[in-house]
Amino acid sequence: MRADRFLRACRREAVDATPIWLMRQAGRYLEGFQALRKTHSFLELVHTPELAVEISLEPVRRFDLDAAIVFADILLPLEPMGLTLHFEAEGGPRIENPVRDEEDAGRLRPVDPRDGLGDVLETLRILRQELGGRVPLIGFAAAPFTLLSYAVEGETRRDAPSLKALMWGRPALFEALMRRMSEVTVAYLRSQVEAGAQALQLFDSWVGALSPLDYGRHVLPHTQAVIRGLRGTGVPVIHFAPLTTSYLDLVLETGADVLSVDWRADLTSVRREARGRAAVQGNLDPLLLKEGNPAQIREEARRILERAGPDAGHIFNLGHGVLPGTPPAHVGILVDAVHTFSALEGRPRR
Amino acid sequence: MRADRFLRACRREAVDATPIWLMRQAGRYLEGFQALRKTHSFLELVHTPELAVEISLEPVRRFDLDAAIVFADILLPLEPMGLTLHFEAEGGPRIENPVRDEEDAGRLRPVDPRDGLGDVLETLRILRQELGGRVPLIGFAAAPFTLLSYAVEGETRRDAPSLKALMWGRPALFEALMRRMSEVTVAYLRSQVEAGAQALQLFDSWVGALSPLDYGRHVLPHTQAVIRGLRGTGVPVIHFAPLTTSYLDLVLETGADVLSVDWRADLTSVRREARGRAAVQGNLDPLLLKEGNPAQIREEARRILERAGPDAGHIFNLGHGVLPGTPPAHVGILVDAVHTFSALEGRPRR
Repeated sequence: MRADRFLRACRREAVDATPIWLMRQAGRYLEGFQALRKTHSFLELVHTPELAVEISLEPVRRFDLDAAIVFADILLPLEPMGLTLHFEAEGGPRIENPVRDEEDAGRLRPVDPRDGLGDVLETLRILRQELGGRVPLIGFAAAPFTLLSYAVEGETRRDAPSLKALMWGRPALFEALMRRMSEVTVAYLRSQVEAGAQALQLFDSWVGALSPLDYGRHVLPHTQAVIRGLRGTGVPVIHFAPLTTSYLDLVLETGADVLSVDWRADLTSVRREARGRAAVQGNLDPLLLKEGNPAQIREEARRILERAGPDAGHIFNLGHGVLPGTPPAHVGILVDAVHTFSALEGRPRR
Repeated sequence: MRADRFLRACRREAVDATPIWLMRQAGRYLEGFQALRKTHSFLELVHTPELAVEISLEPVRRFDLDAAIVFADILLPLEPMGLTLHFEAEGGPRIENPVRDEEDAGRLRPVDPRDGLGDVLETLRILRQELGGRVPLIGFAAAPFTLLSYAVEGETRRDAPSLKALMWGRPALFEALMRRMSEVTVAYLRSQVEAGAQALQLFDSWVGALSPLDYGRHVLPHTQAVIRGLRGTGVPVIHFAPLTTSYLDLVLETGADVLSVDWRADLTSVRREARGRAAVQGNLDPLLLKEGNPAQIREEARRILERAGPDAGHIFNLGHGVLPGTPPAHVGILVDAVHTFSALEGRPRR
């Protein structure tokens, strides 16, 4: 059943136990990754399929996770567009030549994913084969607003001040850039499905910087366009939109199959609002996974399962990515707790 | 009517126009403050009543704001407790000797506000007199979680990782520290009322780092205790709790008279949930006030008034403090727009 729990839950079908995978499950907190990082830069790892495959497989070999996610980065599509990325040990990613005006925008190159992002597609192809159907494979990309936020800010700025200033001050340029990011994202994600991805997650990590009016007017139409553009692939789309529970009704209009929420959300309310429209993914506080003791992690897992309720269509995950420094053993404890509690509580979920 | 719009709205009584004041209306973006900052440190300004009075009065003289707020800082109570504050030009406040363990906690000194925070109280006394009843005077303090977050983190960390780790890992120490912060906060705010404050705002700026379970279990009881401790003063208490709209029902249990929400909140939903229990304050995006053009600022003001609806008990404000670099003219435009639109729309509000 491990082979199809996750995809069944995405489609809101009954499962024998609640499926679980974790954002950033492949990477920073695991020893295998840390060993590779000593001899390779982050970008080398991402661009070397045999290494990226190993990193992606490490967590699904070690833990009873219900899905694998390809090891890659949401910023990769910016490289073939002509932006120069650096991943520094401290302070996160930096872009050498961020987009500031029409001239910068005009210099952005069109992207053929098979060309500019071929390494990631190759990683997906190998991974799908290596997984041999044991668990499904998730591909991913940033949603247009978050991708553009990095392109414009040049670094992680979760309030996206320069991008919002651009959105208000130069709406035509903003629109053109959002369309460009959307096109690249659709092409990239479609290629990921062709390469073997069986589900897709769209990370709109910084969209919570927006008010409901701005979200509805300036961002929602583009996210809708991306998800419409993926309809033909037949794979479920998960939309991660932290800090947007105050305008969940709008976010549900994206048309995503699964809505992934942060740890501030109460799953009972979110599931009520999403009923009949989307499955829900989430939402343990990643800091609790790092800092909590085993009893606290198990208790919080149980509570989240209770808040999610017995209806089909819940995928367990964190409210954000696994934090560096999280003890790997904690991941094992969480995965087992979710499977045990959810199976005990009279699953299969209806 | 300018004299009592704000207090009437706090009590959910009819007003001739929607009252408006802005978090951080006194300070960084204004020329008078900037001139004083050239010759004085931030802490000198806060600790010199005649200067703090001037800074507090500058915005209410210049704009048609419906309330004055004392120029001070939420971290000041940490000084008489024995923590050493620095306000650096870049990067915000720093505490030289943050609280990390039982020993540090044991060294925290009891605070008599008349003694350790006498400058702020003196500023309030002069201000109340200078204002001469033209507009009411707001006093303020940090809520216990946010105050403790600075004491423990030693700097601005909106995810409060060290404090949350302490909360889970050493719950007895966390509880003792929260009780200590609550006691100091109650004493300080009661003294502010004695010195002339006619309303109080409790800033829980970083409480949005918490999940609903942690908020309800570890923070809500303390915030409730603080607000209970202020009941006897007879002045309304505003509770600023950004990023908590996903568990508004819990935040409403604090017992605050007014709930102040960030710009992600939809005021129609918040007002529906708060009906009969609390007035609502908010929620223009402070970045729009800085970066938007006058037409955009007016449009957003009108939209927020519409979302707030015609019922009594809305106070206009930003969703967070005025940002440095905001053109002062924008504040004038916003204040006039709020008064004009709300009066046009068939106020007095019922």
